[in-house]
Amino acid sequence: MRLENAGLIEVRPKSGHFVRRRSALTAEPRTPRTCSTPSRVTVSDAYTEILAAMRDPELLPLGCATVDQAYLPIQALNRLVIQVTREMSTVGARYEGAPGLLTLRRQIARRAVEVGVALGENDVCSTIGATEALSLALRAVARPGDIIAVESPTYFGVLQTIEGLGLRALEVPANPRTGLDVSALEETLRAQPIRAVVVSPTVSNPLGAIMPEDERERLVRITKRADVPIIEDDVYAELAFDGSRPRPLRAFAGPSEDSHVLVVGSVSKTLAPGYRVGWVAGGRWHDQIVRLKYSTTLACPTLPGMAVAEFLASGGYDRHLRRLRAALAGNVERYREMIATEFPEGTRVSAPRGGFVLWIELPPGVDALQIHEQALRRRIVVAPGPLFSARQRFTNFIRISAGAPWSERMAEGMRTLARLIARE
Amino acid sequence: MRLENAGLIEVRPKSGHFVRRRSALTAEPRTPRTCSTPSRVTVSDAYTEILAAMRDPELLPLGCATVDQAYLPIQALNRLVIQVTREMSTVGARYEGAPGLLTLRRQIARRAVEVGVALGENDVCSTIGATEALSLALRAVARPGDIIAVESPTYFGVLQTIEGLGLRALEVPANPRTGLDVSALEETLRAQPIRAVVVSPTVSNPLGAIMPEDERERLVRITKRADVPIIEDDVYAELAFDGSRPRPLRAFAGPSEDSHVLVVGSVSKTLAPGYRVGWVAGGRWHDQIVRLKYSTTLACPTLPGMAVAEFLASGGYDRHLRRLRAALAGNVERYREMIATEFPEGTRVSAPRGGFVLWIELPPGVDALQIHEQALRRRIVVAPGPLFSARQRFTNFIRISAGAPWSERMAEGMRTLARLIARE
Repeated sequence: MRLENAGLIEVRPKSGHFVRRRSALTAEPRTPRTCSTPSRVTVSDAYTEILAAMRDPELLPLGCATVDQAYLPIQALNRLVIQVTREMSTVGARYEGAPGLLTLRRQIARRAVEVGVALGENDVCSTIGATEALSLALRAVARPGDIIAVESPTYFGVLQTIEGLGLRALEVPANPRTGLDVSALEETLRAQPIRAVVVSPTVSNPLGAIMPEDERERLVRITKRADVPIIEDDVYAELAFDGSRPRPLRAFAGPSEDSHVLVVGSVSKTLAPGYRVGWVAGGRWHDQIVRLKYSTTLACPTLPGMAVAEFLASGGYDRHLRRLRAALAGNVERYREMIATEFPEGTRVSAPRGGFVLWIELPPGVDALQIHEQALRRRIVVAPGPLFSARQRFTNFIRISAGAPWSERMAEGMRTLARLIARE
Repeated sequence: MRLENAGLIEVRPKSGHFVRRRSALTAEPRTPRTCSTPSRVTVSDAYTEILAAMRDPELLPLGCATVDQAYLPIQALNRLVIQVTREMSTVGARYEGAPGLLTLRRQIARRAVEVGVALGENDVCSTIGATEALSLALRAVARPGDIIAVESPTYFGVLQTIEGLGLRALEVPANPRTGLDVSALEETLRAQPIRAVVVSPTVSNPLGAIMPEDERERLVRITKRADVPIIEDDVYAELAFDGSRPRPLRAFAGPSEDSHVLVVGSVSKTLAPGYRVGWVAGGRWHDQIVRLKYSTTLACPTLPGMAVAEFLASGGYDRHLRRLRAALAGNVERYREMIATEFPEGTRVSAPRGGFVLWIELPPGVDALQIHEQALRRRIVVAPGPLFSARQRFTNFIRISAGAPWSERMAEGMRTLARLIARE
């Protein structure tokens, strides 16, 4: 029993006691216990390298959080593009100025209503992916120099946008299973002039955490009381493995036009990254966001938005999502298994509750930036931990993406990575 | 001879002396003689109304500077969309992260070289229309509160972007034929801490002016000496009526990677506004712009960019431009004629050297915002003069677009407009 409690052996019913091969699968990666002080964000060069690597099919794509095209309904979308181009032959000629295509906004609102958020088509502004949505939302609620609370670790794109707008980031601890530490945030709200909170309550990146319902309710309550807007990043929400995604924060936040929760979404993780179809439901900042959109990109390209609207209207999306979730859950287990088998003792890996990225804590002292560089020389891209922190925390962490189907090439890449880490 | 000198009669060779019907065609609209003081931009509601009106086919589109789809090669583009979708069937699945699609950047660079600008594909970043290009260029060179010199009058989108970024605008006089008053700018550069100049030397908006070659050379020289970047808005340059567009400012500004002239362009005025294909050649700010692009919209949609790249590569663009220029020059004359015939005495109209917008000075005391509102009630959209100034100058000016083919409906709309103005 002592060995079992220590996680060294496991009991298999009707079989006996077995030595655990590795502790990686049970030991969660550790996350910070305290908030950071606010800081300007400075960006590692690894960021640009990772984004450049997304465009190079020769590189093993463990770094970028995109789903392999094998899992995406490209053929169905292509058919819709061709159909829309034929039927609405002048589609490209017109600007669809902000807030964007009505048919698309209607579908987005319809899906929001299905998960408990009272959205109408006029509460939504379509954007160039979630990146523009986040950028517009931040510009609407904050001014340069303001402090934005983020999860620690958090998606590096959020930090990039914060940097680009001259804002400061304050990192709030996040739990690998339950996400943002609401108590830690509550404390910080009392001590610091936080201007806004950016959070992914449903499948965070890189942790894959899902915030429990009661924590959601509490997060909405304390931010409302403190008059601090929440930007809810919802891009992975459709990829919660059990499919029963909890109600978004926005569902707890009152009528749309007065809401202090701004929801950011896209189809980049589920349908087609290259279409750049995203949106923001800006709550009480909606009008301001539409105006900012005019002066930033004016309008979204019409054609990709129409194809996505048609796809969402066709009813095929939910069927596709069920298949996608099952495939990604399988992938994640496969990659985790590989990490448990091949990576050195002392490695810890997340057990994400959705999505397709794994957050890996390497043994103490291993330098993730070194690993990144050495891997890149072997044509493998991983995302080093310091990217996920404004303060360059997580020096011995990496994020890998399990968005590509398992193959001998991926297995070989993972083994190479394991050797590099072991050598370090 | 006195009557002729006063513009009241005209001599027609071998025919005799004729009374001029109106002076509108010879009297140019007047422009300011002095620079304004720098000011924050505040936006008229007319702006949002005009943009909303772009989406309403029921309204007579005299307000928005877009070319009617009848003049655009929509069918050819549609064929390319279908072809690209079929041949490169996974096109939508991939992000084409900044700086964007290589094939598109190559075509843009090739066309730049043809007009004397030494650009390579790696000097170009593709953007969501010229609006994003301008926004990124301004963010790269300026910080909130900085002063940006603009033409007076200037395109209201430039003022919107300046407002959205918290910058201040300083208006420099512009001549209806030769554009920005370089001497006035030179004086202002000595007196004010100008951070950047935004200028459209080749077919400005709303004036339709083209800056002479020697003024271009001088503008580049004095800004270089003062270390003040120029953002060259090139979106109408392909629409200079005589087709022999002067060399862009950038051609006078030395090697690309060190250039202080940032060029902004798009195909929105010549091919397809709804594709949102634009670009910026950021000179010495190129890397910074690419980085800002990552944190603002990450990537452009792949498909529209591919179709445009194919169109540019096909060689059909120049043929199309020749036809388009001829059609628009004819339109412009038709609309000017109508203004001369129908609008009240004391009206002055620009004689644009390209493009398709007319800048109209109404008789003193006529309130353009009133005209705008009354016209809108009659389902006619015009752009009121104060939109084109950060200081709400041009209270008795309007801009109309001659981008739609002449028709009885347009003629009726123009007559209604004339009556509204006469009544005021």
